[in-house]
Amino acid sequence: MLLKISNLQKTLFLRKLRSVFQHKTVKFSCASSHGDYKFKDTPKVSYEGLYVQDLQNLTEHFDESSFEYRTVQRLYQGLCSSDRASLAESITLVESGNSTKKHMGQTLLQSVMSQMKSSPRESNLTKFFEENVTEKKDTRTELRTMRIGITGPPGAGKSTFIENFGIYLTKKLGLKVAVLAVDPSSNRTGGSLLGDKTRMSQLSVEPMAYVRPSPSQGELGGVARNTMEALLLCEGAGYDVMIIETVGVGQSEVAVADMTDMFVLLIPPAGGDELQGLKRGIIENCDFVLVNKADGDLLPAARKIQTEYTSALKFIPRKHEEWRTRVRRVSSLNGDGIDDLWLLMIDFYSALLASGKFESMRMQQRKIWMWHHIHSDILQRFKKNLSVTEKLHSLTKLVENGDVTPGVASDILLDNFFNKN
Amino acid sequence: MLLKISNLQKTLFLRKLRSVFQHKTVKFSCASSHGDYKFKDTPKVSYEGLYVQDLQNLTEHFDESSFEYRTVQRLYQGLCSSDRASLAESITLVESGNSTKKHMGQTLLQSVMSQMKSSPRESNLTKFFEENVTEKKDTRTELRTMRIGITGPPGAGKSTFIENFGIYLTKKLGLKVAVLAVDPSSNRTGGSLLGDKTRMSQLSVEPMAYVRPSPSQGELGGVARNTMEALLLCEGAGYDVMIIETVGVGQSEVAVADMTDMFVLLIPPAGGDELQGLKRGIIENCDFVLVNKADGDLLPAARKIQTEYTSALKFIPRKHEEWRTRVRRVSSLNGDGIDDLWLLMIDFYSALLASGKFESMRMQQRKIWMWHHIHSDILQRFKKNLSVTEKLHSLTKLVENGDVTPGVASDILLDNFFNKN
Repeated sequence: MLLKISNLQKTLFLRKLRSVFQHKTVKFSCASSHGDYKFKDTPKVSYEGLYVQDLQNLTEHFDESSFEYRTVQRLYQGLCSSDRASLAESITLVESGNSTKKHMGQTLLQSVMSQMKSSPRESNLTKFFEENVTEKKDTRTELRTMRIGITGPPGAGKSTFIENFGIYLTKKLGLKVAVLAVDPSSNRTGGSLLGDKTRMSQLSVEPMAYVRPSPSQGELGGVARNTMEALLLCEGAGYDVMIIETVGVGQSEVAVADMTDMFVLLIPPAGGDELQGLKRGIIENCDFVLVNKADGDLLPAARKIQTEYTSALKFIPRKHEEWRTRVRRVSSLNGDGIDDLWLLMIDFYSALLASGKFESMRMQQRKIWMWHHIHSDILQRFKKNLSVTEKLHSLTKLVENGDVTPGVASDILLDNFFNKN
Repeated sequence: MLLKISNLQKTLFLRKLRSVFQHKTVKFSCASSHGDYKFKDTPKVSYEGLYVQDLQNLTEHFDESSFEYRTVQRLYQGLCSSDRASLAESITLVESGNSTKKHMGQTLLQSVMSQMKSSPRESNLTKFFEENVTEKKDTRTELRTMRIGITGPPGAGKSTFIENFGIYLTKKLGLKVAVLAVDPSSNRTGGSLLGDKTRMSQLSVEPMAYVRPSPSQGELGGVARNTMEALLLCEGAGYDVMIIETVGVGQSEVAVADMTDMFVLLIPPAGGDELQGLKRGIIENCDFVLVNKADGDLLPAARKIQTEYTSALKFIPRKHEEWRTRVRRVSSLNGDGIDDLWLLMIDFYSALLASGKFESMRMQQRKIWMWHHIHSDILQRFKKNLSVTEKLHSLTKLVENGDVTPGVASDILLDNFFNKN
């Protein structure tokens, strides 16, 4: 049985496993070259249902002398020293459709997470939070990173706002900011280099910032999975505030809401008609509504919209017991409202940290993401299955026209999937 | 290859298939007793990717002399003559966890749908609609049934409202009304008999009405699947207006919204605080907001709430291009507002029929339901898989604590599921 362990050894999990397997002839070192360590007897020992063969998924399959192994090692070192180029390359790995590259990405990500878990680095955000928030009740939980989702209809000025907010965070507060984008409409052309150049030109040259538009894979599963993993890599590379931008269409908001702590809706100073394109559910899901472009001629309109939203939100159920959705005006032009917004965001985190909600929310995010992966992977296998694809089109037609019941069609497809898989 | 066809022969689908298979030695009659019809050569002929073996799922597996076969035949006849007891028994079949009974239910449902498709019976609703709506533009699509979803927080008076509305529809308009309930909190005790007796006592004795609280199976998949199939059976039994009641918690609303044409939120004449328990997304998903109990002392409060909701809804994206969500007052005590509501509902259907949205919505509902079944059935198999259950708990813990990435955990579970299935 092949079993190689590298950086993962440090984690609690592997320490537990090591103690379990200690009396077996397992060596926790790398095989020299193509050599497989074999157990004398196949170990039946398990840790809470997990067997040694499951461990293989948690460890590297790559030979120490291989290009893949050295690449993962190099990127891991790069991430540990917050190297931006290594981060970009790592994200490309987890986003890859190629299975070897994907596995390299997973190995890297697992190493980074284990490292963060066992010896977290000092965070500027934690320092800022400890210095500025006095009424922090639960001192056990530290705020190491912020995950902020931002959505809004086209024309709300999301990019400009994020650029200004990002520069405020980096230059004024000394925080490291990563900006990721989920954009289901973008085509998957030549990577994100062009995107970096055209979007947020000021922020992207800021040494404390990393701006990347995630290339979309068209499907929700793809987009979502990549972005969550890119986010974890950014955290591993020492970024304090992660901003995930999404356009207000499709299912991308649900995915973004599931991976962030805080959801911000940015709107232009305009009436309800402009919002018709927004996905329903957004307004009820946000923690902040920001009326952007609140400057010059548009200031009176922005004030009016703010008042109207404030009263409209009274009739919408709360997302968190601890937090009432706030409506604020901001100007990306003159920076008005950004200071106030930041203080409110700190209030938001303070409230959720104090009640213990923050910790349970983060745990929930990870669990939801495991299920997102399971759903999307099973469904992808289902949709790619030849016995299914052969029949899916005609059965869908029959169901749509009412010739076959939805349940019978589903049974036929599942029989084909599981029997001929 | 066993192949028995009964009532399904009439459908377009089977007529097409028959023409395809005609030159083979297939007989479309029932085997006498336990006799299997065999093809001389296994047929490779297919209709748009569907093979003969798929057909078996669409047909009965029961012997003509068997209890099961005779039961399905009896219920089918009962449904065709709109017998209430047959309807209740049929719904019990599709709701059953027992696989033979479930299959009986599926066979029955497929027969009923085929019958409705090939020779639809005269509908009072179609008549009413043709007599009362003059501006109907698209005469190709008939409105045969209405599917109305009703939700609201506890204390909104849903049962009382549905009872009054149902009596209005049956007694005043001569329409047949079926009331189904999705209630995730109810326990699955002795069927629905007790429910019938205690809920909507007036409506349930009305000969034109059928009132049934669906027993919940605890899981969304279960509830949803059962209710959609119960709805189709009610339509098959000649009911004109299907009302699906749900409480405003959990995921039941999403499921109900996916099987109905129109979604109604019923609220008490009270402020936003009372609505905090409602699932987010509801308000943005409804076509009507009804302020109930708009009578006596509560009338001024109801008027105020109506105004506030009307202005709040301006800031919520539209669900249909053709329809602006209406806020109305109703009184279940004195019947105020019911007439007005009914006319507005007719307007809603007229608008959606005229634009062709109604037809595409119904097609969409069927397709969504096929995918609901696929998702919930695959996931059920996944969750029941022994190799998965063995590891799920410990992996979930490791993911929640950040020891293992969500993607790696998902990979481990899927490997176990597909390799050891």
